[in-house]
Amino acid sequence: MSTVDGRDRFRTLWEELLPIGRASGGGYARHGFSDADQACREWFTAQATARGMTVDPDGNGNLWAWWGDPAAGNALVTGSHLDSVPNGGAYDGPLGVVSAFLAVDLLREQGFQPSRPIGVVAFCEEEGSRFGVACLGSRLLTGALDAERGAELTDPTGTTLVDAMAAAGADPSGLGADPVRLSRIGHYVELHIEQGRGLAELDAAVGVGTAIWPHGRWRFDFTGEANHAGTTLMADRHDPMLSYAMTALAANKQARLHEARATFGRIQVEPNGTNAIPSRVTAWLDARAAEQSTLDAMLADLERQARDRVDRDGTGLTVTAESVSGVVEFDRALAGRLARGIGTGKPVPALPTGAGHDAGILATAGIPTAMLFVRNPTGVSHSPAETTADDDCVAGVTALADALRELS
Amino acid sequence: MSTVDGRDRFRTLWEELLPIGRASGGGYARHGFSDADQACREWFTAQATARGMTVDPDGNGNLWAWWGDPAAGNALVTGSHLDSVPNGGAYDGPLGVVSAFLAVDLLREQGFQPSRPIGVVAFCEEEGSRFGVACLGSRLLTGALDAERGAELTDPTGTTLVDAMAAAGADPSGLGADPVRLSRIGHYVELHIEQGRGLAELDAAVGVGTAIWPHGRWRFDFTGEANHAGTTLMADRHDPMLSYAMTALAANKQARLHEARATFGRIQVEPNGTNAIPSRVTAWLDARAAEQSTLDAMLADLERQARDRVDRDGTGLTVTAESVSGVVEFDRALAGRLARGIGTGKPVPALPTGAGHDAGILATAGIPTAMLFVRNPTGVSHSPAETTADDDCVAGVTALADALRELS
Repeated sequence: MSTVDGRDRFRTLWEELLPIGRASGGGYARHGFSDADQACREWFTAQATARGMTVDPDGNGNLWAWWGDPAAGNALVTGSHLDSVPNGGAYDGPLGVVSAFLAVDLLREQGFQPSRPIGVVAFCEEEGSRFGVACLGSRLLTGALDAERGAELTDPTGTTLVDAMAAAGADPSGLGADPVRLSRIGHYVELHIEQGRGLAELDAAVGVGTAIWPHGRWRFDFTGEANHAGTTLMADRHDPMLSYAMTALAANKQARLHEARATFGRIQVEPNGTNAIPSRVTAWLDARAAEQSTLDAMLADLERQARDRVDRDGTGLTVTAESVSGVVEFDRALAGRLARGIGTGKPVPALPTGAGHDAGILATAGIPTAMLFVRNPTGVSHSPAETTADDDCVAGVTALADALRELS
Repeated sequence: MSTVDGRDRFRTLWEELLPIGRASGGGYARHGFSDADQACREWFTAQATARGMTVDPDGNGNLWAWWGDPAAGNALVTGSHLDSVPNGGAYDGPLGVVSAFLAVDLLREQGFQPSRPIGVVAFCEEEGSRFGVACLGSRLLTGALDAERGAELTDPTGTTLVDAMAAAGADPSGLGADPVRLSRIGHYVELHIEQGRGLAELDAAVGVGTAIWPHGRWRFDFTGEANHAGTTLMADRHDPMLSYAMTALAANKQARLHEARATFGRIQVEPNGTNAIPSRVTAWLDARAAEQSTLDAMLADLERQARDRVDRDGTGLTVTAESVSGVVEFDRALAGRLARGIGTGKPVPALPTGAGHDAGILATAGIPTAMLFVRNPTGVSHSPAETTADDDCVAGVTALADALRELS
């Protein structure tokens, strides 16, 4: 395949997905089982069908397409997710699914006959934007999240996961761990746009993942006393917004001190009226670090600072862990084989990531797993400004096809 | 009227309103032209009709009921508002309207023949909870807000005031200043639950208002750069949440230094995703002080601190003034007449308030205006916990009837 051909093919397939769920400002809203997500899923089914692949939805909202019979076992699976964060970019997730289909095309064109079943997967609700749990589809599949807890998850309007699945035509009766399906997967390789500038600084189009930092989400519920903003003496207040504000600043400071990451990007205020002191501020902390011990220490320091302030404000605080993940080390031997198999003629860089992925959930479930990253020139992610070059996307497809050939 | 009779009458009328727009937690959501507001308006019309009063909606969504012919001029108007803040209390607003109808009943029972038309008014959207402008109905009526700007106001779902009025069966074609209606008002007296503990500390059931502090709402738009919360280095961030958090803490500090009030109780974050650094944080400041110069100095100090932090964070800030009101001194002679006319046998305390009211808008428009406050034992306001004693409500009705008789 020439680069020009590759660019045309990438563009043709890519542009089918591009309009789905895009707002006027360019950002995407493709939340699990929404209309936009549904349209992406229909696109997936059409692409699989057009390639003569068997479409095989599982009981957790994940879509699978097979070249060969998965019952043969030792399947080689690649893919990613189609859902987005609120106002997200185009590449985060969909690039891995589009590249998977294009890699299948490339292998077939080269007359390659796989010795193992090859699968393309689109995991659902990887970003957790609708039901609050990141990697929802892969967590349910592996049993990292049990079916009972999953069934009770609700979106911000109160719709349960079960109802959302049913409304989108997905059968929720099979929710939960699927050991048979998992046992048939020999390897999982996920291609993803890089979410930092690591490859850009190394001047490389493609890299291989080594590890996912330990990371998680913690919900901080600050409670106080609703009152009138104009008439209540400053000294009489129990204002949870102040406790939150100090905690948000402390999270930034602690992340810098611990050389880690901590972010409060989501907040919900009650009653959220201009002239009312809030009764409650709920804020979600996203925290990550290279080492579990660093993450633990940072969280402990942050929570101590938050509780000191809460005591001074006369407010309350409960901290609840949500979707916490330990460190994931990808299969070193597998990463080595991929790096050797990718025919770029240059050494392929190996790098860790601070972002969570379904690949991390599968690796934790014992499946030998690898990731390929495609260069992100600005490093911007989870933003409409996320971008990458078509040529790098083509290099990603070629590398993924090389990797599948190497493993098959 | 014996106190027992008064309590029964108060309870009977009060309990008709009580279920409307009340959530399971006890808080009220009666926002302008919502279904709950509409039900309150129907209650108003039914009460006026039952008393043989002429119902006379104006072009700005305010409801008027007349005992006598307003065209005679020099009308004596009393009332308040029926809308609430989000998750508000039962008394803030409705107590003034219920007391107005009960005062009319009391005067009639005493055989009183007014020498002037007496009006009961329910101003719309006093809290500004739906369209963002406090005292919306009275501001439009007096021209303090012009009709063009009013027509363009939208609620959080993008519905315009004009569309909301039309949907609620109110004719929006007459939006704007109504000098003829204003010219017919000789005096306006608003009864309101106190929003502090002033009367409780003075051991008085009823007081007379002297002034409304200068106050207002300012919208702070902090802009930054959306990015991935897990992968973006702390040093590479332009996070508007941090700029906001420091500003919220600074507002509290400045209010204490200036012996004023400053509150950030409402915030909107984009994209508001757990794993996304926000692109924008919009927060509304409610600020008040006894003197205009104090308010100005506090705002200047706060904005300087906010801009220092914004410069350090590499974020942006625009500050937009919304519904700002200068100090309102109520008519001293009128307040004196009321205090003398109210037959409590004890001196009636006179006190200022930090809360804005339609009475302040009418006073600024040149109408001699007074306020009566009813004791609030806890001082809690804009909260489901807002409360007052039935006996104090009855004392309020009696005082209002005394005041109307004194003025008529």
